[in-house]
Order: sequence, then C-alpha cells, then structure tokens
Amino acid sequence: MTHYDISSLQNGRIKQVVKLNNRRQRDAQQITVVEGLREIERALDAGIMPIDAFICPDLLDAYGQTLVSRLKNNPQIQLCTVTTAVFAKIAYREASGGIILVIPYSSNSLDDLPLSDKPFLVVIDGAEKPGNLGAILRTADGAGIDGLIITDTPGQGTDIHNPNVIRASLGTRFTVPIAAVKPEQAIDWLHEQGISILATTPAADLLYTAVDLTEPVAIVMGSEAYGLDTTWLTAANQHVRIPMHGKADSLNLSTATALLLYECVRQRGEISGNHKIFEATL
Amino acid sequence: MTHYDISSLQNGRIKQVVKLNNRRQRDAQQITVVEGLREIERALDAGIMPIDAFICPDLLDAYGQTLVSRLKNNPQIQLCTVTTAVFAKIAYREASGGIILVIPYSSNSLDDLPLSDKPFLVVIDGAEKPGNLGAILRTADGAGIDGLIITDTPGQGTDIHNPNVIRASLGTRFTVPIAAVKPEQAIDWLHEQGISILATTPAADLLYTAVDLTEPVAIVMGSEAYGLDTTWLTAANQHVRIPMHGKADSLNLSTATALLLYECVRQRGEISGNHKIFEATL
Repeated sequence: MTHYDISSLQNGRIKQVVKLNNRRQRDAQQITVVEGLREIERALDAGIMPIDAFICPDLLDAYGQTLVSRLKNNPQIQLCTVTTAVFAKIAYREASGGIILVIPYSSNSLDDLPLSDKPFLVVIDGAEKPGNLGAILRTADGAGIDGLIITDTPGQGTDIHNPNVIRASLGTRFTVPIAAVKPEQAIDWLHEQGISILATTPAADLLYTAVDLTEPVAIVMGSEAYGLDTTWLTAANQHVRIPMHGKADSLNLSTATALLLYECVRQRGEISGNHKIFEATL
Repeated sequence: MTHYDISSLQNGRIKQVVKLNNRRQRDAQQITVVEGLREIERALDAGIMPIDAFICPDLLDAYGQTLVSRLKNNPQIQLCTVTTAVFAKIAYREASGGIILVIPYSSNSLDDLPLSDKPFLVVIDGAEKPGNLGAILRTADGAGIDGLIITDTPGQGTDIHNPNVIRASLGTRFTVPIAAVKPEQAIDWLHEQGISILATTPAADLLYTAVDLTEPVAIVMGSEAYGLDTTWLTAANQHVRIPMHGKADSLNLSTATALLLYECVRQRGEISGNHKIFEATL
C-alpha cells in the first residue's frame, strides 16, 4: 500500500492551506497558492522558492513527474505526499495536475522594475476581475513590457496574489515584473523617470494609433466599471481612444489593453529597423 | 397586494424556460434566453421579436422600466409578471435586472452577410468557451466587421445561441451578423466571393502587421486548445503570426483576435484617407 505523508482531511497543515482561499489570511501571512503544472513551472523558472509542496502521486502525469523531480533536486524544499481526497480539498480546480505549492508573496518596488533604454510600462488602475488581470499578464508577457504597475483607487484593491490571477495568467504572473503602489506614487515616479503617461479614455480625440509610442511610455488603463480615474487623466501627457465602429461603446479591459500594448510593439518593431515589416505595412 | 401572473415555482411555463439551460432543448425548439438589460435592449434594437417576456416588477430599476414600456408598446408581445422567487428560478445570474426574454434563434446564411465594398470578415474555427466568443463579439462590433463566420471541426460545436455567449457579448451577439457553417462551405464561399483567407498560426513567418489588410479579407482564428485546423491552413492565401516576446507561447484567443481585427481597422483607417492619423503614425 502506498504511503502518504498526509491522508487525513483534518490535518492542521491542510486546514492552513484551505484558509489561504481568503485574501485576509493570505495578506496576513504574505503567502499564496500556485496550482497548475505550467503555472508551477513558470514560478520555479522565476526562482520562486516554495514554502510547502503538496504532491498527489496518483494524479501526476509525465510532465508532473518532471516537476516533482525538479522540486526533489532542491534540498531546501520539503515535499509532502497527500491522498486524492486531501488534494481535492486544497485544489482550486478539478484538473490541477497533482502539485500545489505554497509560495511567498513576490512583487517589485517601482525602482526594482528592470527598465530598458526606452521604457515600455503598463499601468492598470483599479482593476477588479482576476480573469481580466490574468489575461492582461499574458498579453504583457507576449508584448515584452518592462513592467506592470498596479494602482488602486481607495476602497478597491486589486489582488495580484490571488490564486485565480496566477491561474488566469497561465503563470505569466511570474514572468512579468509587477509593482503595486498608490496612483500618486506611480505618477511621481514616472515623472522622475521622464516616462510619458498615456491615458486611454473614450473621451479622447486622438486615436491610439496616432501617437508615437516609441519613446519612454506608460500606457494607463482604467477599471472595468468606472474607466480611468481623474488623478490619472490629469497627470497624463496625452489622452488616446480606441475607435469604436459598432453599437457598443467599449471593449473588454484586457482586449483594450492588448490593443495598446501591441500597437507599441508594432511601432517599436518598425522603428528598430525591421525594414521588411515596415515596407510591407506600407 | 401586487398581482403576479405567475407565482408558483411549479408553473409549466417556468419549467419550460428552465429546460432551456440545456443546449439540446434549445436546439430542438430553436429558442434561447436573453437576460440583462443592455443585452435585451440590443436584441430589441436588432428587431428580435420575443416569444415570451417574463418581468419581475420588484426588481426593475428606471432603465428596466423603460424597456418594459417598450415591450408593452408592441401588442404582439405578451408580458408575464412573476414573483422574485420565480424570477430567481429562471435567471442565470443574480443581478439580472428583472426582465428575461425567450427569443427565437437568429443567424445569417453566408449569402445574407451584409458585405461592404472591401469585405472584412472574421472566421472562428472550433472555439469552445462562451466567454471567449462573447469577448470576440464585443471586439467584432467595435471593429465594425461585416460578419463573423463560425465553423466547427466535427465533434466540437460552438454554440452561438448559448445564453452565456449573449451575456459575455453584452448583447453585441445581436449587432454582429453571424453565419455558422462547416469549414468547407465557408472556404468555398470565400473563394467564390474573391475574399482572401488569412490564417493566424504561431508557425507563420510573416507578422500580422506585415500584410495588407485593406483588400477583401477573412481573418481566420483557431480554437483555444488546438490552434487552427489543417483544412483552414491549407485553404489560406497567407499565414501570419503575432510576435511573442515573453516566456509564454500564445495569447488568449479573444486577445489574439482583437489584435488582428484592429490592425485591419488601423490599416483601413489610414488608407481611407485619414491623413492626420497616417502622418502621426509615421
């Protein structure tokens, strides 16, 4: 019979992990949960050191086995095998791959963000939906931005450590540098760095394709429900809008963010001397 | 005491509406459900004639009242008031606004699609997630495409009448012309119309920003899980890819679709003589 380190649903360590469903518990302990094999691989690639690693041997496929071997190679990580029933209790979703890590919170300060010569940043102000933030992270990874700055209007509070954000991002939560600060801090810092602030708002005259995105820029997007806060609108160097040719008046937040990010990629690709692309576009 | 036409949870008409949760029931009767005030307004704007209209007077706000008045103005529509408990039984989500319509299926044949001089179409092949399809519809509405063609690889089956698609689309399900056909039919028709087929696939050499999207074009996107089917890859006049500068190898389907659609909008805006934008981009 297979031996499991934990087979009781009442085990104290298991109860502790279940408590991490709750943001207040996560914030108090500054730890969160990662599940999903791709997500776990990206966390390990990013150098995240797990505090706990729960393994359900009965659920592991070949990919999962590889990740377990990788965890075993690190003597600092103590693996804990659990039964299928125990695993189901701590897993957020059904097909979770048989590994769950408890990891410390990780984020950057503004000064930590690894800026390139011509910084390319995105600011998301007051976003609420984990699914949207996850999708934005995937796009941010794809576009190769220098960093994502999350700011909040008081009383809201985007939770970048939410396990559902990590999941929806497919682990790109760990590949994109993120700083979470107050809007005023971000604005002061961007001014100090000489990074232009570009606010996206339906009320703007200029189209987003009509501005130069090849100079240092922070693209600012507002919340799903309320759009961009006055603080950001006032601080912005330019306002741009996305053209809307249909009956509805706005796009999904993650869609709108993707259009801005990849317009920047397009312009920078051309400017950086990719003449083949440049000519073909004309 | 307020009078309600239906106050029993066991009412036969209510049970019929609940059954529409099930796709087989919807397909058999060729009817579906719309809830959400904005969604209902867009359905009515599109000339959809409801078969049934269930109203919960206790849940109506001013916007809801306006829509109820509009429904009352049409003598062909018979309104049925229900209690909060009955409404909760037929509603898909909690804050549903107090109106639920049962409507007939609506879609276009390929020849119905209202093509412009330089057709701009999108083909989604084998998409599975209602949320993705809803987000794509919002973007398709915003980009002002001529029509969306949904095709399926056998055994899958995108359900464009799914109430969750209507919801996720914020009602743009009713503003975007949609045809649902087999891939072969779509390919034959596009060839007959002289519309170029542009397949999006990570394996392509060309970037999506490097091709001319101002001529008649159908942009083809594959499923979330399996990418684009061989049938489409073979039929395509050109293959393009989205540049990926990060660790992950793909974007969300609705994000990727948005990038292609709005690149077309960008190129066409420039070509159609918007010189201010054109100059500013250079």
